[in-house]
Amino acid sequence: MARLLTELEKLPGVGPRTAERLAYHLVRRGPDEGHQLSRAIDGVMESIRPCSCCFHLTDQDPCSICSDSDREAGRLLVVSQPKDLEVMEKAGWQGRYHVLLGDLSGPSGGADDGTADASLRALQARLQNEEIEEVVLGTNPDLEGDGTALAVAERIEQWTGTRVKVSRLARGVPTGAAIEYTNPAVLAEAIQERRALYSGSQ
Amino acid sequence: MARLLTELEKLPGVGPRTAERLAYHLVRRGPDEGHQLSRAIDGVMESIRPCSCCFHLTDQDPCSICSDSDREAGRLLVVSQPKDLEVMEKAGWQGRYHVLLGDLSGPSGGADDGTADASLRALQARLQNEEIEEVVLGTNPDLEGDGTALAVAERIEQWTGTRVKVSRLARGVPTGAAIEYTNPAVLAEAIQERRALYSGSQ
Repeated sequence: MARLLTELEKLPGVGPRTAERLAYHLVRRGPDEGHQLSRAIDGVMESIRPCSCCFHLTDQDPCSICSDSDREAGRLLVVSQPKDLEVMEKAGWQGRYHVLLGDLSGPSGGADDGTADASLRALQARLQNEEIEEVVLGTNPDLEGDGTALAVAERIEQWTGTRVKVSRLARGVPTGAAIEYTNPAVLAEAIQERRALYSGSQ
Repeated sequence: MARLLTELEKLPGVGPRTAERLAYHLVRRGPDEGHQLSRAIDGVMESIRPCSCCFHLTDQDPCSICSDSDREAGRLLVVSQPKDLEVMEKAGWQGRYHVLLGDLSGPSGGADDGTADASLRALQARLQNEEIEEVVLGTNPDLEGDGTALAVAERIEQWTGTRVKVSRLARGVPTGAAIEYTNPAVLAEAIQERRALYSGSQ
């Protein structure tokens, strides 16, 4: 029982009391329900793998996005993790993705199990084999994400010269915010990267 | 007493109970402290006026920013209200300002006491009399603020043709945010306005 509680507590949002409640629920429902859950977990653990093309976690290979011929194949959006891909889908991105599965630089010095390196090698292969016109870097707009974006941009330039267009998400004030409550650092960047509406003739 | 409570409750963050606490504090402290407070309020009410140049609220005319010769005189940042000016100062803006003191368009149809119109006329005069190179629109990144920005941009173009450069704050993901918790509408705009790092040769 202690081992089950320990494992349950590793789940996000599950503290000691929730873990106990879940464990007792399983015990009360009897062995069948427990085994079904454990088999379902095992099943997912065995079937979910990084897509061999884009490294998104998937139970089919290539994943449903890589094998969807209706997507814009010439544009790749690079994200750090599968959750970021999901929110980019909600934002309406029409192209394909490449998931790093880990950040490459940052305070942790890029400590990593090697998945990010494998993902980068796969990205290099895609840039050689697919007709990629543009790579959009969609890492987090923070120190670690910016470091990762810079590292990926430099690799792409090493691999392809200037053949492939590389861009990053716009940085600025988020739609719907109020200026008076906006962080000065965010405003400073929004001023710095301001966008011309009429360009002036002087 | 009821009238004082009503007036105190109009202050931001002051509910009935806080109003009572403030009122009884004044009563306990005796008439001198109360009169000092009321004279201080009257004094500010009489001395604070919109700057005749930029419409920032100030007790000197022109305000300390308009009369500061160290500021970049050729760039104006247009904001909706004095609070927005204050946060732009924290963000490090080096130029001058123009405060609209009200939004010009939006759901309320621009209902306004005429101050925004007076501020706009003052802006027109500044564009004619000062050597303004660029106007940056710094209204809120929401429906009402965007409507105001558009209206001001159109006026400036009517007044000056394309002589004056008009720009707006960059819109995008705010520095420090996490992609996975970012609003899809914000991400969609950040994708739309993405910034080229390497521009590609195809």
